[in-house]
Amino acid sequence: MKIVIINSGSSSIKYQLIEMPAQKVICSGMIDRIGLEASNLTYETSSNKIEEILPIANHKIGLEKIAKLLMDENVGVIKSTQEISAVGHRIVHGGSNFSDTTIIDKEVKDKIKQLFDLAPLHNPANYEGIVVAEEIFNSAKQVAVFDTAFHQTIPVVAHKYALPNYLLTENKIRVYGFHGTSHKYVSEKAINYLDNNSNIITIHLGNGCSMTAVKNGKSIDTSLGFAPMNGLIMGTRSGDVDQSVIFYLVKTLGYSIDAVNTMLQKQSGMLGLTGFSDLREIEANAANGNAECQLALAMNAYRIKKFIGSYSAAMNGLDAIIFTAGIGENSSNMRKLVCEDMDYFGLELDHTKNEIRSKEIREINTPNSKTKILVIPTNEELEIAHQVYELLMN
Amino acid sequence: MKIVIINSGSSSIKYQLIEMPAQKVICSGMIDRIGLEASNLTYETSSNKIEEILPIANHKIGLEKIAKLLMDENVGVIKSTQEISAVGHRIVHGGSNFSDTTIIDKEVKDKIKQLFDLAPLHNPANYEGIVVAEEIFNSAKQVAVFDTAFHQTIPVVAHKYALPNYLLTENKIRVYGFHGTSHKYVSEKAINYLDNNSNIITIHLGNGCSMTAVKNGKSIDTSLGFAPMNGLIMGTRSGDVDQSVIFYLVKTLGYSIDAVNTMLQKQSGMLGLTGFSDLREIEANAANGNAECQLALAMNAYRIKKFIGSYSAAMNGLDAIIFTAGIGENSSNMRKLVCEDMDYFGLELDHTKNEIRSKEIREINTPNSKTKILVIPTNEELEIAHQVYELLMN
Repeated sequence: MKIVIINSGSSSIKYQLIEMPAQKVICSGMIDRIGLEASNLTYETSSNKIEEILPIANHKIGLEKIAKLLMDENVGVIKSTQEISAVGHRIVHGGSNFSDTTIIDKEVKDKIKQLFDLAPLHNPANYEGIVVAEEIFNSAKQVAVFDTAFHQTIPVVAHKYALPNYLLTENKIRVYGFHGTSHKYVSEKAINYLDNNSNIITIHLGNGCSMTAVKNGKSIDTSLGFAPMNGLIMGTRSGDVDQSVIFYLVKTLGYSIDAVNTMLQKQSGMLGLTGFSDLREIEANAANGNAECQLALAMNAYRIKKFIGSYSAAMNGLDAIIFTAGIGENSSNMRKLVCEDMDYFGLELDHTKNEIRSKEIREINTPNSKTKILVIPTNEELEIAHQVYELLMN
Repeated sequence: MKIVIINSGSSSIKYQLIEMPAQKVICSGMIDRIGLEASNLTYETSSNKIEEILPIANHKIGLEKIAKLLMDENVGVIKSTQEISAVGHRIVHGGSNFSDTTIIDKEVKDKIKQLFDLAPLHNPANYEGIVVAEEIFNSAKQVAVFDTAFHQTIPVVAHKYALPNYLLTENKIRVYGFHGTSHKYVSEKAINYLDNNSNIITIHLGNGCSMTAVKNGKSIDTSLGFAPMNGLIMGTRSGDVDQSVIFYLVKTLGYSIDAVNTMLQKQSGMLGLTGFSDLREIEANAANGNAECQLALAMNAYRIKKFIGSYSAAMNGLDAIIFTAGIGENSSNMRKLVCEDMDYFGLELDHTKNEIRSKEIREINTPNSKTKILVIPTNEELEIAHQVYELLMN
């Protein structure tokens, strides 16, 4: 069964064509900078790799271009879009409506639309991806896989804020959590590897960062809340900040609420602390003695440590922590900073193993470490393909 | 040495006259509802107890009334204000200027004034208390004891937010922490009792609530940050909330920033969750099956548990947790909720000892509990008197 995976952002489309159940990636690529004069397009199969710069005005034109490449007589991998059984869409916000992967019909589309307010940067682009895919892959089932779905098991004690009750009941303000597809994928891999599903903390460190307490295979708490801004320190996002700061900036210092929102989303986090948002640059500068970069890395790791403690309390135990996503998989330095001085939690890092680079699941703790430390490459596209396949086969 | 302690709020004055170093409270009381038609005044000595309802227009008239009672020929305890060696003022916000108790001169007053913006509800009232006390107790040393001082040892990795750097360097936006006098007092008592000062968490649960990680006798992290609103769930204050919620309320739902501020300060926390702000009422209702009250108590305890975990990670260890202040000292139910299912952190509550009521320091863990659980009555006035005395004697 051939499944196209689409992750549609405000100015980008990431895509893969996966053969299931073989889990074979037939083709993958992305379009970036949609709407600009010079959009980037990449397209990669086992035998071809294409990179083009061309103007792509909108998502429809972008997806048509991809479909054309897929069927191209030289570089193509299918003869007709009719070969595609399903399109799996990554949808960022499923609100409280969706706790599982769902076949998209008019009602589902309406509900995704109703959630635009909760995820103004993401859901409209995801929706646009669905509309365009319905036209182009018109014989395929369209399936929605929600970033929030895995976190729908978080109990009310952890998903409710201490605000007036009507904000939850009427306005649906609560912890939703994000990166659910990734947390689900790596926690299942970990449970399988460890043969122990009790108390696991997954640490997703990429462009966005979040941590999840996974108890008996279920998400019971997570660091991103109502929207993907709080919790850990991210590339440009502040993570947790005392809300009083917002009132002080607006009421006392005269900032506009929009300026503060933009600041916390785009000018904070590692960028605000160092002037750089790419962790590799920050690590290089820190190694060269840049004090701001050293502090930012220490702050980042300190906050991750505190969430490890916090979630160990939430679960009353800790069996394993899992590092994943770009930074989690590749920064041995960040993993070292997080794991040092954490023997109270049974973490004992093997410094040699920590430096090994690999695309496989790997254990980087010492043999005596009471708590396992794993690096597990995440694969949200494969997880989406898997969920789409399971849904259609059952 | 006779020391008057003044804790001046926006519409209240709490006061004590303490003989040091004997630590003898000669007289104590308060004035409430200053500025209203019917202000309350209480005045209590070992032999007299007075409660009056009368109009008290402002802090000056209030403090004059107190001075008159102190020298009254029937109920008084001194002959003249000249007998008072010092007045110790509780000052809520010392910013980054004050890491210790300080004799008040013009420069100190100016600095306290400069901090009005950071603590608009508290510092102006504290300042007013100083001005009035200088007139009435004009031969006494005026001494400032800052709520923030104990937390000045928090390292930058924990006191800095992941915001653009200039907000710290120019605008002094950082974690200040509050209830410092209480955290200092009970952590010192605990260190003395335990003969171990390694890794202690103090849990101050009163009208305001906060927790502090005290490592080797020093505050290294605390749950209240820039202003006394975040962290734990309080009577009417929300504690931690994803900052995205503020932007959503203002930008999408059309609330004014002032309305949101008021909501988070005065209509949230236990009040927002249950309709009640007094914990005793909430506990009584929960016992009678009120689901909202049961959930609010569970949420409150869950957040405290998570901070215990978080600070155990910050300190890489945990030797004792200390409950203090109104709720911490008196609610055996809250202590039970916090300590249950926390054996990963070595907490084992003795349910019989937990129910004992006493004004003394007491240990409420089982003999086998790896981590000590203490209840220590706080006494901010005595701590202030102690600090004033030490300052003047050295």
